[in-house]
Order: sequence, then structure tokens, then C-alpha cells
Amino acid sequence: MNVSEYMTKLGQQARDASRHLANCETAQKNSALVAMAQAIDESREQLKQANQLDLDAGEAKGLTPAMLDRLALTDARIDSMIEGLKQVAGLADPVGGITEMEYRPSGIQIGKMRVPLGVIGIIYESRPNVTIEAASLCLKSGNAVILRGGSEAIHSNTALALCIRTGLDAAMLPATSVQVVEITDREAVHQLITMPEFVDVIVPRGGKSLIERISADAKVPVIKHLDGNCHVYIDIDADLDKAYPIAVNAKTRRYGVCNAMETLLVHVDKAQECLPILARLFSEKGVELRGCELTQDLIDCNAATEEDWFLEYIAPVLAIKVVESFDAAVAHINQYGSHHTDSIVTENYTSARKFLRAVDSSSVMINTSTAFADGFEYGLGAEIGISTDKLHARGPVGLIGLTSQKYVVFGDGHIRES
Amino acid sequence: MNVSEYMTKLGQQARDASRHLANCETAQKNSALVAMAQAIDESREQLKQANQLDLDAGEAKGLTPAMLDRLALTDARIDSMIEGLKQVAGLADPVGGITEMEYRPSGIQIGKMRVPLGVIGIIYESRPNVTIEAASLCLKSGNAVILRGGSEAIHSNTALALCIRTGLDAAMLPATSVQVVEITDREAVHQLITMPEFVDVIVPRGGKSLIERISADAKVPVIKHLDGNCHVYIDIDADLDKAYPIAVNAKTRRYGVCNAMETLLVHVDKAQECLPILARLFSEKGVELRGCELTQDLIDCNAATEEDWFLEYIAPVLAIKVVESFDAAVAHINQYGSHHTDSIVTENYTSARKFLRAVDSSSVMINTSTAFADGFEYGLGAEIGISTDKLHARGPVGLIGLTSQKYVVFGDGHIRES
Repeated sequence: MNVSEYMTKLGQQARDASRHLANCETAQKNSALVAMAQAIDESREQLKQANQLDLDAGEAKGLTPAMLDRLALTDARIDSMIEGLKQVAGLADPVGGITEMEYRPSGIQIGKMRVPLGVIGIIYESRPNVTIEAASLCLKSGNAVILRGGSEAIHSNTALALCIRTGLDAAMLPATSVQVVEITDREAVHQLITMPEFVDVIVPRGGKSLIERISADAKVPVIKHLDGNCHVYIDIDADLDKAYPIAVNAKTRRYGVCNAMETLLVHVDKAQECLPILARLFSEKGVELRGCELTQDLIDCNAATEEDWFLEYIAPVLAIKVVESFDAAVAHINQYGSHHTDSIVTENYTSARKFLRAVDSSSVMINTSTAFADGFEYGLGAEIGISTDKLHARGPVGLIGLTSQKYVVFGDGHIRES
Repeated sequence: MNVSEYMTKLGQQARDASRHLANCETAQKNSALVAMAQAIDESREQLKQANQLDLDAGEAKGLTPAMLDRLALTDARIDSMIEGLKQVAGLADPVGGITEMEYRPSGIQIGKMRVPLGVIGIIYESRPNVTIEAASLCLKSGNAVILRGGSEAIHSNTALALCIRTGLDAAMLPATSVQVVEITDREAVHQLITMPEFVDVIVPRGGKSLIERISADAKVPVIKHLDGNCHVYIDIDADLDKAYPIAVNAKTRRYGVCNAMETLLVHVDKAQECLPILARLFSEKGVELRGCELTQDLIDCNAATEEDWFLEYIAPVLAIKVVESFDAAVAHINQYGSHHTDSIVTENYTSARKFLRAVDSSSVMINTSTAFADGFEYGLGAEIGISTDKLHARGPVGLIGLTSQKYVVFGDGHIRES
């Protein structure tokens, strides 16, 4: 069987399984998730052995320490996969819910029923824990899923696939509800993203270049997360006692996350007062500062270039720009930002209201650290990613983002007269 | 200026206008719509003269009578454009509405604000009335729009563009909020669908081949409407007094619409009783019947081939199939249908409930004619199309379908601790 035949088989099986999953009861899906958790708990040794094969091969191949770290299935990571499965089992099932039922003047009654998307393809890097995270969210939302993890994790993912299979069997769900692509040929990715007859949506998880490549080649809709170039804007009417902790938290809580602040904007009338204090706070944390000319006049920092305003550093680096006005801040965010998450610090009612409306980002915040932009914090329970698209899903994507709605119409023999 | 430069200019202008439109007040958008209606009313003669140029060229080019009919700007059509603009002005503005505001355990307050998509590209055939319909819905939903109508309507569309411009000027909205592509080069379409930096979504309106071509080549999300192969299924527990009018209405109300029934499914235990009566009713309306073997045994009709089950006739032709069971009916609809609109006629609670859940279509109906699948009937006010996609918008797409949501987060100096 060649790659194309293999992927077509997976696609057809996923499509068939999806029809079954769309109609199955919540309890059945939950018991599969709980059984998967149990299977993982009972397979710790096998999982770690399989993972060791990947780690050895990765080391021989010269993977960086950071990549090896993401690849490793430690006991803590296994615990967290088990915990994650149980949490997803505990989430409310969105499928089948009917909302907005109302009667129309014609006498028909109409509403919307939430339904699964069908078949989801997930493409991700060599992080085996994503296998379980993605599988659980897709299954709970009633979708069949095809998982294509990085080739360096192939032994780990194949071992996890066995645990998933055990869980599906225990709940008498089709074994093909969750399928792990068990060949490492890169052609498999191309196949996966060009089978609209079998796959309804692709969710790529990984670096920007991977996601751009997939989006460019896909013949299937893609829920994508490009970069998170987030801003905090300290307004002329900011309460600085709020601004300092927010700025520090947004930048330094974690450097490698997409909701970290990458550029700080400061109103010119506040700059003299707050930049020296911020410079000290960031220097204590070891953050490199790159400032515009006005910033350089006020504090000791490196020079920011035009390119810096576009960058997602994902590192202890912060760009700082002094802006002439509220409008200049909003214009900067809309022009250079990535429409991910942006926050204003202000006590001014009108500025807060205008910021909410004018900033074109998936999360717009007032007096809040950008670090809150996250599925758990937003109450989605878990997230498959943070969408920087506007269509379908925007911002953190949880179970709801993996569903669609169909119209349901009730009549009593109604016909349309004209 | 070549085609690429021309389209890039339109794109950049639309993007700029969209930032303005996203923040403008409802009254301003409404007054533009009303002023457009007035401008059209005052430009009847110019519009008809421009349209005559298109009609003459079309006749010389050998357009079919049906195409010439769609191209014609009659007084009735002009009245209906004026009426449509006023109706859209009267619809509620979805933009800026905030829903689902709630407090999270962290203390932040979070909700969702409805926002425009940004820039919409509409590609359609030579029907000048679509120019006004599409412009009004995009403007009301706060989006800038680039309109690319069929080349045979270029004079009509250019004349309508003047009226639109008059309306935008009167309301002091950017003249580039609505732009009509005034060159007929087909390369313009390719440009329009491959400028993700300027265009957020493409809505093609027209035949299946046009839409398939655009979807295949687009580098921008497409809200698409492929075919409407709709079914009515007369269940074993159908009340035939409801079934007859529903079947006749679903097929014969209009033949050229996407919500018309194309295949009638009849439970085997009802076939003998109802098919002869249906045959007589359809014969009175001049509908050609194509039946499966069992149908052919019961009534006088042509033979249906496997291909017939896939067809959207858009004509006085109906395929009829006798099915062995409820499950066979659902399987047929999911396999051969186009996931548009399907209706069951039954008095059985369990069958009705199962049908709602199991049929994978954008509208699923009980004891109702498929003819109701329509934005006006559903209370959307007007529709830009009926989406057969699952992502973003499914079924009739009104103003809401032309918007997205962003998260809005309120804090009071909140930072994320862990």
C-alpha cells in the first residue's frame, strides 16, 4: 500500500466513524476518555520504553535540548495526560444542543442544533502529549480525528495510539474514531490536507513556517494560529499601580507563550514617569529592552528597528515605543500586531470603550494582563489552539470551535405559499 | 496601470475603508443605504440606458434568453433594489453587540463582541441586482466590499456604482467602502481571490462550476454554496394529508431554486398507497418522474439511474426512490444529497427525533416543505447566500454570517499568577 492509498483508507475510515460519532451519546464518549486514561496509566512502562526509542534516535539525529525536552514522556507528562483526559470527560458536551428556537410568522418553528464538524486532521510537531490532548477534544466534540505528529515521536505516538484504541474498544466506539498516522513519509501530510472528501478541517499546531506552508497548500479549511505579537498600551489616563504589574506579568510570566507581550506602548505624557521604573523592573527580570528614539532618551536600552515592531520574540526581549496619542497606539497595534491579544491600561471610560471597539484582535483587554488569553482562563475547559483567523473560530478554540450548527425546522404540514 | 496594480489598489483601499467602517455608527450606515436607494430612484433613466448597452452587446454576443432576462434592469427590478436597500437599512445592526459576559474565577470578566469580517469579495454572474443586494448587506455588517460582477453587466454595474457612491458620499462614508471592479479582464478575479492581505473572505454567487473553480484557486476563505439536492422522505408513519402538499410544494413552488426537492423518498409500506396519488398530482403540474424499479412497478414513469440520485435538476423533473426503512432513507440522503435541506414527513416522535440528529444537512426539517429554507423565512432579513459548508456559516447566511466575534476582557489590574 503506497502513501496515497494508506491515507485514503484512513480518510474513508474516519469519515465512516464520524457518522457514528455524531450520533453517539455523551456517556459513551466520556467512558472512552476515562478508559483511555486508565490504559495510559497501566502502560507507563511501555510508553516510556517507546519514548526512549524516540529520544535515542532524536539524540543521534542531533535534536536540540529544547526539542528533546518537548519529545520526552516523563511521569509528570503522563500524569498530566491522564488528568487532561479526565477533565475533558467532565466538560459539558456541546453536541446536539438546540438554541434560539422560535416561531416565524409563517408558523414554522426554527432553531439551531450544534453538530460536530465531521473529520478533523491535526498536524503537529514532536510533542506526544498533543496526541492525547487533540484526540480527547475531537472525540468529545463528536468528531473523528486523524493525528499526524512529528516523525521524531513516531514510537511514542504509536504506543499512545494503542492506549487510545483500548479506550475506544472499551466504550464500543469505532476503533477508527481516532487514527494516528503511523508512517513518517512527509507525503502523508500533503495527502491529509488535500482530501476534502474525507477531512473537514485541518488544525496545524506548531511553528509559523509549518502553519504557513500547510495553509498555502491545503484544499481543506484550516483553523490556524500564526503568531502572537501582543501589546500592552499604557494610556495617558493609566493607573500606574495597575500598569506596572500588568506589563511585567504580560512579559515575564512565561517567555515562550503566544500571549506574552512583545511590544509595550506608552503614552508620551506618561513616559517620563513610568519608563525608568519599568526599565528597572524588567532589568531585574533580565529582559532586554529595545526602544524607539524617545524611549532611548529616557532609559538605557538598545535601539528598536522597524522590524522589531513586527516581531514575536518568544524570549526575554521587549520592544518599547512611546506614542503621541491614543489613536497612534491603536494604529500601531492594528498595523504591526498579529491580531492576537492586546490590552490597554486606562482609567478613562471613553478610551477604554474606544479601544475595545477599534482594536482588531481576537482578544481585546482593559486593565488586564495579556497572559489571561487562554482557553482555560476563558472557561472553555481546554483549547485545541488559539485562532488568529476571523472566520469560524477566533481566539482560544475549545469544544465549541470544533462544532458547527445546523438549522432545525418544525412544521405541521406547512408549505410556502409565495 | 495593469490588472495586478489595479486590484492591489482596490484591495488596499478596501482594507483602509474597512477600518473606518468597523467603527462607524449604525445611523451612518443606514443613511448611506437610504441615500443609495434615493440615488437609484433618481437615476432610473441612466441605469436603463447603461443596461441597454449591456443588453445590446449581450444579444450581439448570442446570450441565451434566460441570461438576457437576468441581465435586464426592468422598472420592477429597480423598484425591488430600492425596496431591498430600505429593508436592509431597517435590519438590526449586529456589529458591536456583546454577549455572554461573565466573571471567571480569576476575577476577570469576559464576553464576546461581534465585529465585521473586514473586506469581502463578491464574485457573481451578470445579474446587476446582485450588485446592490451584496453591497447593502456588506455595508450594513460593517464590511468593505469589492464587487466583481459578470463582464456582460459591466455598464449596468458601473452605473449602479455611481448611485452607491452618491449614497456613501451623502453619509460621509469612504467612497471606497463599496468598490465595483470596472475592468472585465478575467485576471481580476484571480487577483481578487489571492490577496489575503486585503481580502478576508470571498463569497461567490453563481453556478457550481464557477464556485468550484474559485474554491480551488482561492488563497482566501470562501463561503460557498454548491448545489441544493434536497429530499423529502415520506416515512411509514407519515400523515399523507401533510405529505402530499409538502411534496408538491417542495418540488413545484419554483423549479429554479436551490431549496426545491430533487428526490422524493417513500417508505416501502406507504408506496403503494401514496405513489399513484403523487404521480397524478405531479403529472398535473407537468413534472417528469424518474423512479427506481419499485417505483416503476407502481406508477408510470421513466427509469432513474444511479446518476439521478446525485442530480440537482433545477427543472420540472423529480427522482423517486422507494426505501426499505427509515435508516435506508437517512443513509440515502447523507450519501447522495448535497447537505442542503432535507425534510421528513412523519407523526412518529422517535423517527422525527432521530432524523433531526442523523441527517447531516444545513437545514433538517420535520413536516415542512423544503421551500422554507431561505434567509427571509428564517428571520435573517436577507441573505447573501446559502452556505453548504460547515465552517463559519452553514445554511442561509445573513448579516451575522458576515461578522465574527472577538473576546473582550475587563480587569482591574488583574495579572495571572501561574
